[in-house]
Amino acid sequence: MINEYQNIKVIGFDADDTLWVNETYFRDAETEFSKLLSRFETENKIDKELFNMEIKNLPVYGYGVKGFVLSMVELALELSNNTVSNNTISKILEIGKEMINKPVELLNGVEDVLKELSKNYKLIVATKGDLLDQERKLKKSGLLDYFHHIEVLSDKKEENYSRLLKHLDIKPEHFLMIGNSLKSDVLPLVALGAKAIHIPFHTTWAHEEVTVNPNKHKSYRTLENLSEVISILH
Amino acid sequence: MINEYQNIKVIGFDADDTLWVNETYFRDAETEFSKLLSRFETENKIDKELFNMEIKNLPVYGYGVKGFVLSMVELALELSNNTVSNNTISKILEIGKEMINKPVELLNGVEDVLKELSKNYKLIVATKGDLLDQERKLKKSGLLDYFHHIEVLSDKKEENYSRLLKHLDIKPEHFLMIGNSLKSDVLPLVALGAKAIHIPFHTTWAHEEVTVNPNKHKSYRTLENLSEVISILH
Repeated sequence: MINEYQNIKVIGFDADDTLWVNETYFRDAETEFSKLLSRFETENKIDKELFNMEIKNLPVYGYGVKGFVLSMVELALELSNNTVSNNTISKILEIGKEMINKPVELLNGVEDVLKELSKNYKLIVATKGDLLDQERKLKKSGLLDYFHHIEVLSDKKEENYSRLLKHLDIKPEHFLMIGNSLKSDVLPLVALGAKAIHIPFHTTWAHEEVTVNPNKHKSYRTLENLSEVISILH
Repeated sequence: MINEYQNIKVIGFDADDTLWVNETYFRDAETEFSKLLSRFETENKIDKELFNMEIKNLPVYGYGVKGFVLSMVELALELSNNTVSNNTISKILEIGKEMINKPVELLNGVEDVLKELSKNYKLIVATKGDLLDQERKLKKSGLLDYFHHIEVLSDKKEENYSRLLKHLDIKPEHFLMIGNSLKSDVLPLVALGAKAIHIPFHTTWAHEEVTVNPNKHKSYRTLENLSEVISILH
């Protein structure tokens, strides 16, 4: 039997929610924010409005904690009709700083998998978000030595991956991407002719959710956790 | 006579205040901010406190407009003893969005110089700041096609440049860096054994200012504007 991954030479990893916990911290922050503003609106409504504000501001602020905090401040002013207390604004800034200073919590088995794969493959990280945040998390993670290259992308669309592969001189058929987001880590790679493995995290940001046509030939694989990658590649 | 630049194969350019105007917009924003808060403190004092707040937050927020805005909000709360109006906070957020959406204003002669140099050298951009901001400015600038590679660094210290040169497979003796900051664009390169040209911009952020020992052998050159680079390299 031919292993469909036999041509793979380079493996790319998403970082947030693939190597370590991230989305959980955003969910916690959203809950805290909703509670702070609960005298102005229902928590459910606040949650929805925050998502809308983030999407509205995404072209200006991009991904990452800083833009998220700025969106929370803007929404606090708006939802409260400019009556929110300075104290609440101050707490919102604190939420952001706490998120940025959170320790990095590796997902189960990540280090073992990287150790094993690094024997036979070149490993890279391809992540989006804030450059400083991502570099800091990689340093804190203790995983830096497993990777040949770290790329922080401003977005993860087909063109971003295409440019990255070209720049690193990697042919799509030699590349396998592993990540928790179908939209950002899987579908653009499949479109480019590379391989992709989807490992869902229990929480996904609504903006990363996509509807996949179930009748379309599924050209990627979904696994429950990263450790399964080892047996599939061998 | 031997041209000291005869071994140069790759030229790196800083972006903000080397290719286009940037610091001026920060200065304008600071002035606007000081005016907004002038009922709490003298404008001079506010200016100093804003610098201190930025430096305090630099390890958390890094460089770029978003961290700058978050620092302004934090300082507004602090300076006003939590009595600043929601309207003022809202205006601070607006200052940030306006900065991000500013058109890119190229410095004199930039495009001609890049056109000329790109005939004989590989050109790259090495800039620090916010990834999305810098990518957006490069796109708006219309200069993208002149560059072989764009690198947005989280900082511009010797180790950052060292990693960049290694990654791009460039020997220090083949590399010339051009930029407006002695601290960020010149001294780390000289330390690495690369060449550097300093082209001061009329405004420098205090954090970028360094004291250079005048007795030390000056191993970089200072020019008044980018166009002079052409005659020096030929």
